[in-house]
This record gives sequence, structure tokens and C-alpha cells, in this order.
Amino acid sequence: MPGNSFGQSFKITTWGESHGPALGVVIDGCPPRIPLNESYIQDALDKRRPGKGGVAETTRKEPDKVHILSGVFEGFTTGTPISLIIYNKDAKSSAYDSLKDVFRPGHGDLTYYEKYGIRDHRGGGRASGRETAARVAAGAVAQAILDKFGIEVISYTVALGGVVAQKRELSFIDQNYFFAPDPDVVDKMEQRVKEVRSSGDSIGGVVETIAKGVPAGLGEPVFDKLDAELAKAIMSIGAVKAVEIGAGVKASSMLGSEHNDEITPDGFLSNNAGGILAGISNGDDIVVRAHVKPIASISKEQKTIDIEGRATTITVGGRHDASAIPRIVPVCQAMVRLVIVDHLLRQFGQVIDWRLRDRG
Amino acid sequence: MPGNSFGQSFKITTWGESHGPALGVVIDGCPPRIPLNESYIQDALDKRRPGKGGVAETTRKEPDKVHILSGVFEGFTTGTPISLIIYNKDAKSSAYDSLKDVFRPGHGDLTYYEKYGIRDHRGGGRASGRETAARVAAGAVAQAILDKFGIEVISYTVALGGVVAQKRELSFIDQNYFFAPDPDVVDKMEQRVKEVRSSGDSIGGVVETIAKGVPAGLGEPVFDKLDAELAKAIMSIGAVKAVEIGAGVKASSMLGSEHNDEITPDGFLSNNAGGILAGISNGDDIVVRAHVKPIASISKEQKTIDIEGRATTITVGGRHDASAIPRIVPVCQAMVRLVIVDHLLRQFGQVIDWRLRDRG
Amino acid sequence: MPGNSFGQSFKITTWGESHGPALGVVIDGCPPRIPLNESYIQDALDKRRPGKGGVAETTRKEPDKVHILSGVFEGFTTGTPISLIIYNKDAKSSAYDSLKDVFRPGHGDLTYYEKYGIRDHRGGGRASGRETAARVAAGAVAQAILDKFGIEVISYTVALGGVVAQKRELSFIDQNYFFAPDPDVVDKMEQRVKEVRSSGDSIGGVVETIAKGVPAGLGEPVFDKLDAELAKAIMSIGAVKAVEIGAGVKASSMLGSEHNDEITPDGFLSNNAGGILAGISNGDDIVVRAHVKPIASISKEQKTIDIEGRATTITVGGRHDASAIPRIVPVCQAMVRLVIVDHLLRQFGQVIDWRLRDRG
Amino acid sequence: MPGNSFGQSFKITTWGESHGPALGVVIDGCPPRIPLNESYIQDALDKRRPGKGGVAETTRKEPDKVHILSGVFEGFTTGTPISLIIYNKDAKSSAYDSLKDVFRPGHGDLTYYEKYGIRDHRGGGRASGRETAARVAAGAVAQAILDKFGIEVISYTVALGGVVAQKRELSFIDQNYFFAPDPDVVDKMEQRVKEVRSSGDSIGGVVETIAKGVPAGLGEPVFDKLDAELAKAIMSIGAVKAVEIGAGVKASSMLGSEHNDEITPDGFLSNNAGGILAGISNGDDIVVRAHVKPIASISKEQKTIDIEGRATTITVGGRHDASAIPRIVPVCQAMVRLVIVDHLLRQFGQVIDWRLRDRG
Repeated sequence: MPGNSFGQSFKITTWGESHGPALGVVIDGCPPRIPLNESYIQDALDKRRPGKGGVAETTRKEPDKVHILSGVFEGFTTGTPISLIIYNKDAKSSAYDSLKDVFRPGHGDLTYYEKYGIRDHRGGGRASGRETAARVAAGAVAQAILDKFGIEVISYTVALGGVVAQKRELSFIDQNYFFAPDPDVVDKMEQRVKEVRSSGDSIGGVVETIAKGVPAGLGEPVFDKLDAELAKAIMSIGAVKAVEIGAGVKASSMLGSEHNDEITPDGFLSNNAGGILAGISNGDDIVVRAHVKPIASISKEQKTIDIEGRATTITVGGRHDASAIPRIVPVCQAMVRLVIVDHLLRQFGQVIDWRLRDRG
Repeated sequence: MPGNSFGQSFKITTWGESHGPALGVVIDGCPPRIPLNESYIQDALDKRRPGKGGVAETTRKEPDKVHILSGVFEGFTTGTPISLIIYNKDAKSSAYDSLKDVFRPGHGDLTYYEKYGIRDHRGGGRASGRETAARVAAGAVAQAILDKFGIEVISYTVALGGVVAQKRELSFIDQNYFFAPDPDVVDKMEQRVKEVRSSGDSIGGVVETIAKGVPAGLGEPVFDKLDAELAKAIMSIGAVKAVEIGAGVKASSMLGSEHNDEITPDGFLSNNAGGILAGISNGDDIVVRAHVKPIASISKEQKTIDIEGRATTITVGGRHDASAIPRIVPVCQAMVRLVIVDHLLRQFGQVIDWRLRDRG
Repeated sequence: MPGNSFGQSFKITTWGESHGPALGVVIDGCPPRIPLNESYIQDALDKRRPGKGGVAETTRKEPDKVHILSGVFEGFTTGTPISLIIYNKDAKSSAYDSLKDVFRPGHGDLTYYEKYGIRDHRGGGRASGRETAARVAAGAVAQAILDKFGIEVISYTVALGGVVAQKRELSFIDQNYFFAPDPDVVDKMEQRVKEVRSSGDSIGGVVETIAKGVPAGLGEPVFDKLDAELAKAIMSIGAVKAVEIGAGVKASSMLGSEHNDEITPDGFLSNNAGGILAGISNGDDIVVRAHVKPIASISKEQKTIDIEGRATTITVGGRHDASAIPRIVPVCQAMVRLVIVDHLLRQFGQVIDWRLRDRG
Repeated sequence: MPGNSFGQSFKITTWGESHGPALGVVIDGCPPRIPLNESYIQDALDKRRPGKGGVAETTRKEPDKVHILSGVFEGFTTGTPISLIIYNKDAKSSAYDSLKDVFRPGHGDLTYYEKYGIRDHRGGGRASGRETAARVAAGAVAQAILDKFGIEVISYTVALGGVVAQKRELSFIDQNYFFAPDPDVVDKMEQRVKEVRSSGDSIGGVVETIAKGVPAGLGEPVFDKLDAELAKAIMSIGAVKAVEIGAGVKASSMLGSEHNDEITPDGFLSNNAGGILAGISNGDDIVVRAHVKPIASISKEQKTIDIEGRATTITVGGRHDASAIPRIVPVCQAMVRLVIVDHLLRQFGQVIDWRLRDRG
């Protein structure tokens, strides 16, 4: 009943605080004989590294160097737990001393204290976005399995601070700092970030994820539906406030005759379902959107209370990000990877490996 | 790894097909000495009964009479599993014979067949909305526990086929067929339903749920966050395509200074968080919205394929609902009840009962 | 965290008290397209019916007629939950009125009251051996799957009240009331039962279970080892006080050179391991033994306390069994069936069914 | 469905191979504000260190220095996951090169290969007894919680290679290398070990564990009974072949009038139940016994097969232990600690901590 694990067949357990000595993840249930090494995982981690663009991000540098401590032998997974660790290099918690007795609005400071009755004030502790590094590392291991099935998972920014992408040029995503799929909006996004940042404020955005090549038949009715699991996975990311599948919010104002995806021998004529019918994948692209709130750390003065419940104000100093979006893109990708692999293994069991053996 | 259970401490397992002899739910983990009887559960079921309004619903009558088969002794729960059963009275599956070899667009017919390799064509089988009767019954048992804590969960329709409620008059909800909280929209909603219905089409809508009195501290970081679990719970309802918490979709275009809920000794000054910070309840009202797609069964002709993969067309006859909304309102309520009780018990264990004993 | 479910991939949840209206089980995770009907399950239940022999059993007659309420369509499983119900016909709880305020030694009366703070005194309530009928029914469904793999699970009595079987004539098991595999001990067992019964006392015994045809590779290190899961499964049966695998207790006084099972291209030269090495099946017969305590209900006077904690004495009247052994034999068989099927599905997933399809 | 986690409310996940860079455990669910530091855990680990006595153990030195990587802040647990790591210092896997293509009898070599299709031949890999270091470390954290409840868990050797302890002098346990509770058998045990060792053979034994101060009411009927969970926990230790609760094996040949523990206002008159009735603790001492097979690595020649299935022989060289018993004693203790804490938290939830707060 504690909540630091995700998945049933491909089960990950993450641990570590933002300012402790290290953070990591244990992956239990990875099939054997999947090729895996540190650089494959490192590539995924590098994608989320802050400070890349210099525009929207803090100057804090996190090398996020991953180490494999178990579960891999001579370049292949063995079927035993894979333990990944990332040491925290730049963990000056003294910067947070002024926050020791006061709760930041929009953060988990207050609720963690309400729940646990103890205050680890160092940079958000376990509630820090830094926790997601472990998710991204685990997601890379998941992708190593998806590679065998030809499944691809792509995440990108479709809105940032009200600037909305109109195109879906997936090849352009990795060519811009915002992971936007539309060359026409990058300048506007950068402009918006600068504006907001200079006013000491912050913005949110929308991240879309698409999974291609997922076979029909994944998902477990009636509660562990594929869309239900995706919703949980995405909503478990710190700043997400809404999750959409396929047509999403728009579905509620459509007619049945508009929304239903007609079926032909060559496939569906539309994809309002987002690749999922009655909680089970239908073979079409899976489409999930995450609506992300603005970063809670702003340098404008806000009302709050201290640990004794007395009224006070707070101005969160430091050079914080104006938007979490570029960092959340790889996290959305990781969570969708984890959900799909988990359901692949729920469906196929460890024989997944035997099937690969049979194939070649 | 099968998916017919929900919850960890208050665990429910539902079973039954729409046209089998019965359906039901087993509740494992209900604390002992909670007052419970059949009429308390029946009241919740009656709320979802179709045919009440005569406007939007099918003429099929389901008495949905619930029976308690175990776990209750002399009017109180005993701590052992509570088995609830509802017999299907009106289960003429012959009406579905024409669907035997063809997949209805927008339904789970195709994906269930892809997953299980077997076709139970009788009215949607397990994927039928009828399955939710078991959820509502279980939700009533959950409420019997919430009653002890003074927690109230209210669901209502905030949009139907594009007609949007502007007010939140909670006292009005039970006074209209649509469970709308705004007296000014009821006529428009009825008009919209009639229109759509007469054209053989269908509409969706938006259901909002509010939970009052939830203590701060519920929710298990980092994956089993309260909002993540709510998202899963709500998305597991058949027709839901998007879930919002608090400000939801709007959060993605707000500024940090707008979105952050400032804190005072008397509570939060706003509730964009929807009562949840960093996945843990903050003591404020919990607010969840479900976006529901239009009903998939429409009498307009649609393209589809048969069980051999050949192109064909389908017109789903019968007197179907134009909208699932009035039926989904109590289901959203039930799912939120289940999530909150589950997290109460994760937090407090079975001693929850001992505390009650101590109170007198 | 409640405890009425067993298994992960083939998950059963049992419910029902001995003197309630019914008891049953919901099976979630049964693969689709397994042939199944009520008479197949009924056969397993009939084996545990009391009163067959007239020697050791109570005169209470339980028809234990099973009904399938869901999950089976036209003679085959569909992949959806299978709900089985058995109505209690002969449930005169008034016979237990005298026990209302007193705790029977050796029973769960006291501990259930300590745990739940409520007393359901009707014949043991949920702690009654009657609960195992649901296990046996679920075990039969498990066997329907094992049939496809050519796996056979056989249970028999190897000791009763100190009378020990020397032979393992498996064909003889069903030819005697005690399910003993040794024709030479049946008369002695019957004699022993009569003796003990006439003195108002009771006896225990030992049940051995052998599983033939289990493929190598089942079991999940390091905690969900196949032997660990079998130990839990068997120890969860009410009266069991010890569980042995293979050489079992004897292993602790053997030499390594005696105990190790040498390996040849044709298989192992001995089976001290009981078919399991490092928690994983090795392809040899799996061998498990359960040591069962004497039935706690005896007509001799015993010291006890009442619900107020005051000293008193009790004489449990009625015509109770002298030994639970003949009833526990099918329960051991059921539990081993459940463990093996669960691990088959953990290993192979739901594709287990697709493999069958491929085979023809 | 992978198997490297144990517990539901106090959930541990262990990882690491005997000859990898490190091994460890992640503990999820530890209540907040429990005093904890590395030296407390180190004490428990030191108890299992080999080479202490010089009699029965290998000369391999494992410092087993534990590091806390998360979940503890300023000397107290925070409620977040506790990650413990032990680096492997002495991991010369080259010593195992000769075993690369051959399966050792009595070990998991063959079954791991059957299951995973890959061979990590370095010293048993994940199946090595070294894995239990993580269990002992986690058990120490569990004990930090049990300390708050005044619960004590003591393990000791009651038989070694046929030499059986007659006394239970618990104060003597830590005064002898074998953890025997009987001063009169230590010399005989030592003699037995020397004998067996010089002949290149090995022996097993019996470890008994007693838990004092466990409150009545723990255990979750009907499958997660306290004795069922203990049986799984103990049987999951590598070399264990049988588990007994209370009277255990003897129960099967006792009369009901002998076995039943009579109840008085001052407690039970005997403890054949081993502190558990109907799967729920009764407040008396919990008593569990583990029967341990002889160590499988012996220097006598044995028949086996190689990775191609061809007949061969093997002589396992090196200076192996003659008995695993002294090492298994702290592991049994750890597993019983884990089961009890898990059930305490299942019963009391995280409020366990609030209760402590209330107390002082």
C-alpha cells in the first residue's frame, strides 16, 4: 500500500530525495536476454537534462550519470531485478534553509507535512521533479523491450503558455528545445517564456504522446483498462492536472456519428478513440495528452503559513525554470513506455522472451 | 494481473455479463461494525435506474434489486468479505443475434475479440455499461464508511451535448433528470436530447464530482497519488475520454501566480489544485471532472467489418439512450467514494474501526 | 491488504460464512476458450462431501450444488471473471446459540473477536472449514486449464491419528473413504477413528500431494518461489500446522551427498528436492505434505473464558467429525492446483491460450 | 508478477547478484519518525557475517557494510522509500569459471537456466545465499518499528546435523557460534561439523524463531493468515524444506484434547497453536521452525549434466561451509520480523505513527 511502485508485470520501484546522496529505481520483471547497457539508458536521461537551451531552465547542472548495479550480465538482461542508481552531485541543500519553517504554495510542502508529520525541506525532498529521473531511466529499459516489438513512443509539446502547435511534424521535435512538433511556434514559445520569466512568473503547457505499433489486445478490463492505466501513469507526474485520450475533452461535445471511428478492412477511418476501445488497444496509434500546470516556484510574493500555522508571505528566490514542459516531455514518454510494456508482459508473460527466441 | 479488481485496502472485485444470470461484486477489506443493510445500497442503485425520465433512456427496465450474501451480521459489517448480487431479470440476448458476426464501431466488440479470441455478442457482455451497477453498489458500501467521517461525495452534470451549466446549485441536482446543478439549463438539455435522439444520433457530456470533508494527508506518493488514482478510477468508466482535477485543462494556460492557491491560517484562498497537492489531499474540496463521449450505439448507418474481416455496414437498432450521462453520474460518484475509502484505509488500517469504537 | 484473495494471475476471491445464505468464489484471470461446465466443478465438490463414509463424519448433509454465474459462454470460458456460488441449504445457526458468549479452544472464536470486535458465533462463521468448498470449486477450474497441459495433481492421506501409510498405490486412493494410498492401513485407520470418536476426542493426520507433468521453469525468485507459494497455500488451510516439500523435515538431518539429487540426461536420480530447486520447478514431480492438527471441536470438557473474560468450561456437543482429513484431501489438491496454474499464467500470460489455438 | 518483493504494507524489494557490484533493498512503507541509522542496521548484518567462528564457514570475508541512500533525515525515517546498499568487495567471479557450462546438483543452476534461458554462472548469481544480506538489513529496519511496540524476535539453532538441542536458554544463544540455546550441545555440534567437513560433505539443521509481545488480532483471513505468511516467508529462504508452526509436525499425531490450548483469564495453558488461531495472532508467543537442507556445494563427486545436456561429473571445490545454519539464523529472524511488521501496518495503517506520537 505504499505508493512508490508502478506496474504489475514490469514493476518499478523508485526511491531517493532531491538532495540525498542518490536516487534510483529497481525494475523487477524485465524479461531475460534483452540487450541493455548504461549508454542506452544514459541517452534517455540526457534528453531531460536541464540547462540545455539556456532559455527556460535553471542553471543547476545535474550530470545524472546512471549506473547499472544488477540484472545485466555480459550485455544482456538476466531476468533478475535491474537496479539503477544516479548519484546526486550538486545537492547543496543549504539553499533551502530559509524554507525550513514555511510552506510554499502550489508545492507538496504542506501536504507531506500533514501526512508524515515530519519536514524534509531540502528542495522538495521526495516530491521534487528530480524524482522523475528514475522514471526516465526505467522507461529506457522498457523501450529496450519495445524495440523488439517495433513499438515507438514519441512525446512532444503541443502547447506552452497558451502558444499552441498546429502541426505534428514529428521529425522536428528533437530539433528544438521545447520538443515542439511545429517549426512555426518555436519563436513564439521562446518569446512567451522570456516574458513570463522576466516578470518572475511561470507557465504550463500540454504534452502529447503517441505510441505507434502497439498490437491490438492490450489492456485488462474492467478496472485496469489501458486508458485507465495511462491516465494514472500520466496524472502521477507532479504537475499534471488533466489527461486526455484520443479526442479527449472534445469528445464530450461531439455527436456519436462524428466520434465513432468507422472500421474498414484496412483499419479505422479516424482515431477519436486514441487507439483504445473498451479499455483494450485496437491496433491504431495510442494518443495521450497531459495538461501541465505552471511551475509553482515563482519569485512573486505569495501568502502562506508557517509550520506553526501563522500567516506569512513567501518569495521563492533562485533561478527557477519558467516552465517544466521540456523536462516533462521525456517523463510522459517514459510513463507511456512503462504502461505498454507492463501490459505486454501481463498479456504474454515471460514467454515474451521465448517468442523472441523462436523468431530468430 | 487480471483487471476486475479495484483498490488495495478496500478491494472490490466485480463480475458478470449484461446478459448472464446475474452480476455482482465482492468487497474485501470493509472494516467491521459499520451499519449496513440492503436498502442503504438499494437507494444508490435506484439513482442509476434507467427509464426514470422517459426522455433519454431506453425502455428496458432493470429492477437491479441487490442482495447481501455475506459479510453482514445483525445489521453490521463483520470484517469478512461482503458479497453483493443483482440478478438479471430482463436479459433477452436474442435481440443481439444480428450482431453476432459484426463489430459495432465505438464499442469493445472488436477489441474483446482481438484479446480473447472468443465472441460473447450478447449486449456488450462484460463491456456493457451494465457492469457499473456493481460499482455503484460497492460505492454505497464505501459511503457507509465515509458517513462515519462526515465525508460527502456529490456528482452532477456540468455539460450535456454542448449545453453547459453555469451554476453549481447542489441542492437542485436531485430535482432534475439530468442531475444538473443549474435550473437554467435543464430545458435546453432536454431539447438537445430530443433533437439528437430524433436524428438517430447520440451525445456526450461532462460530469463533475466534488468530495467534501476529506482530511488532509490521503494519497500515497509517488505513483499512487490521490489524483492519479482518481484519474484511473474515472477513466476506467466505459465512455470517459478525459479526466480533470481542479483547474484541469485550464491550468496549462494559466500563470503560476494565477494558479497557485495561496494559503492562510483559515485555509486556501482558491482551489485550482482541486484539493490535492503533490498527490496528497490538502483538506480542501476534491474536484474531479469526467469528459464522456457520446453513446456508441446509434441508428445511423456506419461502416464496419464482420468477424471474417470483410467490409459491411451496420445500423444499431433498438431504443438506445441518446446519452449515458444520467447513468454515469452515480458511477463517477461511486468511483470517487471507492478511491477515498481505499486511501483512508491505507492510511489508517483496520484500526479505523477501533477509533470509531473509542469515539463512542 | 485484506486477505480473501489468492493468486496473482489466476486470482481467486472467496466469500461467505458457514451459516449465511451462500458462499462462493470469483475467479479473475482464467484464460479464454477453456471448456468448462458446472458438472466438471461439481465432481470436485462431491469428493469433499461429508457423510459419505458414515465413519468419521458429521451427519450434516451439504449438497454443495455449484452454479456458474458468469465468465462462461456456450461451454467455454470467455476470459471474464468466473463467479461460482453455492447456496447453504442446511444452515440452522440456532444450534450454535449456546456458543454465543463463550470461546471454543482451538477455534478462531477468540482471535476473530480480538481482531474485529464483533462476534458472528454461527458455526465458525468465516473461519469454518466450510469456506474451503469455494477453494475446491476454484481448484476445479484451475484443473480445467492444467488438463490442457497434461498436468495431474493427486492428494491422499499418508497418516491418520498415528496410523501411517507405507505404500503409494495411487490407484487405490479413490477406493477408500480415507483417500489412503495403502490398502493395508484402511482398517487400522477406521479402527482408530472409531476409538477416538467414542471417547469424544479427535485426531489429525498427514496429507501428501503430488503434481505430475509440471514443466521446468515455474516459480518466481526470490520471494515468490514455487515452494514458498505452496507453503503459504497449504498453511492457509485451517488446521494445517506444518508443510514439507520433498524430503521435508528429513532434509535437516541428511548429508549433502544423500540429499542432492544427482542429474543425468534422463532426469534426476532421486527427488529429495520435491521437484523444486531454488524456488523453480525442475520438471520432476512436485511433492508437498501437510500436517493437520486434530479437529478442535471435541465433546470433552475444556477450560475456556467467556466474552467478558471470565473463566468457564465448555463441552462442544453435536456429532462432529473425529478427523478433518478426508475433507482436507481435496482442499490440498485444490490449493496445489491453484498455485501451479497461477505460476503457469505468470510465466506464459494470457497467450497461454493463443498457444493452444496454434496447436490446433 | 515478478517475485523480488515481499510484504504489502511494509514492502521490500531486494536486488543484486552475489558477484555483481552491489546488492540492496528498497523498503517502501516504513512509517515516518522512526529513529534509524546505519549502525543499527549494521549490527544485524554483522551477526550473519561468515568467518566468525572459523569452524564451519568459508574463509571468504564479506564486510557487508550497509549504506542508507534515502528515506532517513536527521536520524528519523521520513515515510519515503528507504534504499539500502551493500557493495560487494570480494567478488572474484573467475573462481566460478569452471562451472560455466555445468549444472551443480542441489543448486538453482539448472532451473534458472530452464526459466530464463541465460546462464549467470558467477557463484549462484541471484540464487546465492548472499541475497539474504538484503533481507537481514530490511529486517533490522522492521525491528526498529517493532521496538516501539515492545516486540522481540529471537532465532536459534535447535538441531544441527542430527544433534538436537534439549533446552531453550535464550540468553545463551549469542554466546556460541551456532546460536544454539543449549550449552550441552555446542561441543557435539562442533564435532559433527568437523567430521562432516573433513569428509567433504555437508549437513543441515533446524532453526526455531520465537516472537514475543505480538498483540492479538494480527493476520488476514482466509489466505493471508499469519501462519500462511510466515510459512511463505520462511520457505522462501533458499535451503528450507519444511516449516512448522507451534506443535507443527507433532500436531498430526496428537489427540484434540492434547492439542487444544485451554483458555483461562490469565492466558492459554499451553501453546501448541504457536500463538496463532485461525490465522490470527492470539497474543501468545509465536513459534516457527525451519528445516534446512544440507548445503548443496560438496567436494564429493556427483553426477550431473552440462549445458548441452550431456552426462558429466562435478566436484565443487573451494572452501565451502559445512552448514548454512549459523547464517540462516539471522535470516529466519529477519523474515519473521518482516511478516509481523507488515501485518501490524496492514492492521493499523500509517496511523501507527500517530499512535506513537500520542503516546509520548
